[in-house]
Amino acid sequence: MPSEFELIRRFFTRPPRHAVLGVGDDAAILAPTPGMELLVSTDMLVEGTHFLPETEPQALGWKTLAVNLSDLAAMGARPRWALLAVALPEADEGWIAAFAEGLFACAEAFGVDLVGGDTTKSPPTAAALQRPPPGGQGSTWDGPACFPGPRVFCVTVLGEAPAGRALRRSGAKVGDWIWVSGWPGRAALGLAHLQGRVVLAEAELGPCLNALHRPQPRVALGLGLRELATAAIDVSDGLLADLGHVLEASGVAARLRVAVAGPRSGISGVPGVPGVQGTPTPTFAEQCYLSGGDDYELVFTAPPARAGEVQALATALDLPLTRLGEVVAGGAGGLTLTNAEGQIITPSRFGYEHFS
Amino acid sequence: MPSEFELIRRFFTRPPRHAVLGVGDDAAILAPTPGMELLVSTDMLVEGTHFLPETEPQALGWKTLAVNLSDLAAMGARPRWALLAVALPEADEGWIAAFAEGLFACAEAFGVDLVGGDTTKSPPTAAALQRPPPGGQGSTWDGPACFPGPRVFCVTVLGEAPAGRALRRSGAKVGDWIWVSGWPGRAALGLAHLQGRVVLAEAELGPCLNALHRPQPRVALGLGLRELATAAIDVSDGLLADLGHVLEASGVAARLRVAVAGPRSGISGVPGVPGVQGTPTPTFAEQCYLSGGDDYELVFTAPPARAGEVQALATALDLPLTRLGEVVAGGAGGLTLTNAEGQIITPSRFGYEHFS
Repeated sequence: MPSEFELIRRFFTRPPRHAVLGVGDDAAILAPTPGMELLVSTDMLVEGTHFLPETEPQALGWKTLAVNLSDLAAMGARPRWALLAVALPEADEGWIAAFAEGLFACAEAFGVDLVGGDTTKSPPTAAALQRPPPGGQGSTWDGPACFPGPRVFCVTVLGEAPAGRALRRSGAKVGDWIWVSGWPGRAALGLAHLQGRVVLAEAELGPCLNALHRPQPRVALGLGLRELATAAIDVSDGLLADLGHVLEASGVAARLRVAVAGPRSGISGVPGVPGVQGTPTPTFAEQCYLSGGDDYELVFTAPPARAGEVQALATALDLPLTRLGEVVAGGAGGLTLTNAEGQIITPSRFGYEHFS
Repeated sequence: MPSEFELIRRFFTRPPRHAVLGVGDDAAILAPTPGMELLVSTDMLVEGTHFLPETEPQALGWKTLAVNLSDLAAMGARPRWALLAVALPEADEGWIAAFAEGLFACAEAFGVDLVGGDTTKSPPTAAALQRPPPGGQGSTWDGPACFPGPRVFCVTVLGEAPAGRALRRSGAKVGDWIWVSGWPGRAALGLAHLQGRVVLAEAELGPCLNALHRPQPRVALGLGLRELATAAIDVSDGLLADLGHVLEASGVAARLRVAVAGPRSGISGVPGVPGVQGTPTPTFAEQCYLSGGDDYELVFTAPPARAGEVQALATALDLPLTRLGEVVAGGAGGLTLTNAEGQIITPSRFGYEHFS
């Protein structure tokens, strides 16, 4: 490794606050809290698949950790430690410093210690693959080291929950009500705006871009739901798709009420997806609501008798918790959508395969 | 993600043996053993930097996990769980199946549960980076998706050690003896043979290629050293370089005896580096011994009074444990090398910067 990578490594080394031993040895040493179970999750973000080269590095640093903390939030775990492995094509100090700033801002906001990591070089692709250039012999391609390797980040997060109390996807029961937090669809609307597919009003653009670039893992909500919800998941792939995972794991189906093409988009009773007024079609905003990924809201199920406590939690956290529908008996993962008048609709355009 | 990646995911999903919940939810749930501390380490392997595209996938699968377990071994931890994140350019099922086979062979050999992971697509590099082709306008480069993205693996391993008993790099004391396990240099010699830089005799080639392709993390040794050694590290960058990390972390120096250009290469008293007879120069084999990385042997320090117990451990494990020299007072990280006759030598060719 070039010594510039040693410099970079320093950006990611800060004294741990609650680890026995942090960065600098062969492994970190952590002291698990007695009586707690350990929750562990890992995610890889690859340039070109998960983010574009021009993504602002500070936002990317935040998001790289935040999406992992969202997995812990969905399990009702308290985040405690993280490890970060990075592959970089070059030692661009300014870029790395900004990325580290965003990452540590997220770590500090959620009480997480970065306790370990790995820094490695992402090699020029053609050199790495030792393949001939495209275009064959006629190509004027001028050497093997033609494209810098992609940036890659891999974060592992560790959290804790009292033994036997972590929230799983598999606990939803027939009769449970289905809830979602916050404002799903914002991230997808923000992205659509950046791509020129919709035009959001000024007041709506800010929250949507914030949701896209600086998602808030619902850690406090997850902790509050630990004694309340029967199942939970975070919305990374889209509300319907992720709810589908809960239904499949729980062996149940669901009935949701959607106000298709209504004056306000989204599930009936929802505060409304920001930006719906500014978009050409309410249907598009609704599509973002139901199928847009990258929001990191929580979808969860709870018995109807706990609805008051769910509402009290919403008030305490100052976070909308909206009822979407209820868990019903049926083929695992089956979804029935109805409009506001209770008529069944078939929203095949939402890209979800398991509609009943 | 294309659904073929769902198929691939299955290759990496086996029922956990000692996890509360394995692959399939937002996070794995683990029950730490009461009284134990948790040891965690993460490593990223990138195609082109850590391995070549033509590397045999089964060996690569083994090595990807083994090098991580080596970090736990160096801390005296018992490996328990692992997580694997992968980025792949395409769903080559045969390749993945072989990789998974190697990985799980290593996991089973060392009692490790694969409890979580992430599968993602490694995008074509030019497309990912959205940059013009080399050669400018005159290029016959025929499209943006010209090179498949690299394979990337990121493994996180978790192990346990009794509270306060993990081996650190920082515990070496003046007067301690310095030891190394096994046969450092074998991996580097094997690589040199494959690269045509040396020719190893048939009998020596096997062990050297085994060390290169299927390194054995010294887990049992690490456990045995927990009550015996004052400091330890695994040899990934080279014996002198990694010993240097121990000396620096401990604030001490060392004096080692090396038999330069002797009839048998390596440190005096060492069983000898395999292949030295077949190589053109003993110096080359010695260089592999002192500076060759990728062996994953352990270097450790222990008080002279414990030498008998170290030897007993060697016998019990049927693994050579060889004394290299001793820890001395001096500038942190300083190394003095002497030949068999006790004369100081300056092996600048070993690429180690901290010789005193």
